[in-house]
Amino acid sequence: MTSIAICAPATSLTRERARETAALAAAEFPDVTLHFHEQCFLSDGHFAGSDSARLEAFVECANDPAMDALWFARGGYGGNRIAEQAISRLGDAAKKKVFLGYSDSGYLLAALYRAGVGRPVHGPMVVDGSRERGEGAIRRALAFLSGDMSGLEPSLDGQPAAAFNLITLAMLSGTDLMPDLAGHVVMLEEVSEHLYAVDRLFFHVTQNLRDCAGIRLGRISAVPENDRDFGQTAEEIAQYWCERNDLPYLGRADIGHDADNKIVPFGLAQGASRP
Amino acid sequence: MTSIAICAPATSLTRERARETAALAAAEFPDVTLHFHEQCFLSDGHFAGSDSARLEAFVECANDPAMDALWFARGGYGGNRIAEQAISRLGDAAKKKVFLGYSDSGYLLAALYRAGVGRPVHGPMVVDGSRERGEGAIRRALAFLSGDMSGLEPSLDGQPAAAFNLITLAMLSGTDLMPDLAGHVVMLEEVSEHLYAVDRLFFHVTQNLRDCAGIRLGRISAVPENDRDFGQTAEEIAQYWCERNDLPYLGRADIGHDADNKIVPFGLAQGASRP
Repeated sequence: MTSIAICAPATSLTRERARETAALAAAEFPDVTLHFHEQCFLSDGHFAGSDSARLEAFVECANDPAMDALWFARGGYGGNRIAEQAISRLGDAAKKKVFLGYSDSGYLLAALYRAGVGRPVHGPMVVDGSRERGEGAIRRALAFLSGDMSGLEPSLDGQPAAAFNLITLAMLSGTDLMPDLAGHVVMLEEVSEHLYAVDRLFFHVTQNLRDCAGIRLGRISAVPENDRDFGQTAEEIAQYWCERNDLPYLGRADIGHDADNKIVPFGLAQGASRP
Repeated sequence: MTSIAICAPATSLTRERARETAALAAAEFPDVTLHFHEQCFLSDGHFAGSDSARLEAFVECANDPAMDALWFARGGYGGNRIAEQAISRLGDAAKKKVFLGYSDSGYLLAALYRAGVGRPVHGPMVVDGSRERGEGAIRRALAFLSGDMSGLEPSLDGQPAAAFNLITLAMLSGTDLMPDLAGHVVMLEEVSEHLYAVDRLFFHVTQNLRDCAGIRLGRISAVPENDRDFGQTAEEIAQYWCERNDLPYLGRADIGHDADNKIVPFGLAQGASRP
């Protein structure tokens, strides 16, 4: 049996999305039980409840010894506001847990990795079920949380790795949440940003990651139309800034804001299902 | 006589905008001569010419001993791509020069300030003449470059200061262009960003500016409509992150992406017109 706690440190989930995810899990993963924290459905301005409500739900889920994993319901924005306090309150049960999410969840995954608490993992969230072919993302997440490693990002090898949304990593740099990524393969993806913004983000992150093992580029999707063409593709941008900063560009990564988003355990992929 | 060289390290200017600015200067500032570098009117993808063309024009203008000031034609995006190389090539004439601009120009202003070259100053650019009441911005810039200090940001006092576009400063942090802002009053403004993005930028910059003297908030303008209200105003966001990071929040600053954008010499305001 695998017991999975679900909370929403950023923005809220619909009850319909929770029901559909629970139905898929019941039909296809009989050994998995999903526990949606009521906080998932709260709303307060931009967020799934106040900072305090999101913090308490995350800490409760992370510290629950009956739960094997904490699965992020959804990104959006907000995990950074509660991450520092959350980490300071985690106990032994959190150290044995897998934490699965991406995008805005990167703030908490980063903070957990920095603190050496549990097993932070980049991968699909509950909300991804609403995407086209989104059931594939949900199956990949539930299979991974059940111990099936077939959804791992295919380039993962013997080197430690981490995966981030590009602007999330840029905002983390220099803060108290930023983990040491020396020697790591860092995979980066982005959505809904102009290419000039992607360029300035690569300017920033390549200079802030100079001791990492190299960069892999995930998908840069839903780039808005601009009044002029940028003149370089997303991959040319990544290669340009890696070269300028003597950082190996290692090729593409199979991650992104889409249903095909693969799983990247932070650190070494071996033994990823349990810390 | 004040001779002003104009180039465009980011995006290009129209010839019409150059003509109108020259006409205003001729009519109202007889002691000022404007020298528009041809590079201002180039176009290459997103930029006012290739990286190389923009670099050469900037270096030529900055190193020209006949010029008292270098005035940025326009922001957009691109100064960061040439700043490091530009600084390494500046000579004695650049050290005696005023450099006036804002927004994307902040990359070069920051790099100049870090290198101790010339007098970097936040203030209106040539392109601002196209704004509503934009002639006021042009007059403020030309008056300042002629030695008239009446356009200085009104809160400037005996403390060193610097002013930046919020995302520009966020991208600078941790890079080779970032100046030491310890003990400085840092004024920040933003345009066309959602409030959740302003919040994450303040999360980032307040942790990266912990030894500055405090933050002043310029205008956060043209905030796009979001699918939900953020729940805090821009000033509440600035206050929140300053308080979390034990950084004094000092109130508003009279800067922004608008015709009222005031002048902020980097460092001490006294003697700002000549280094």
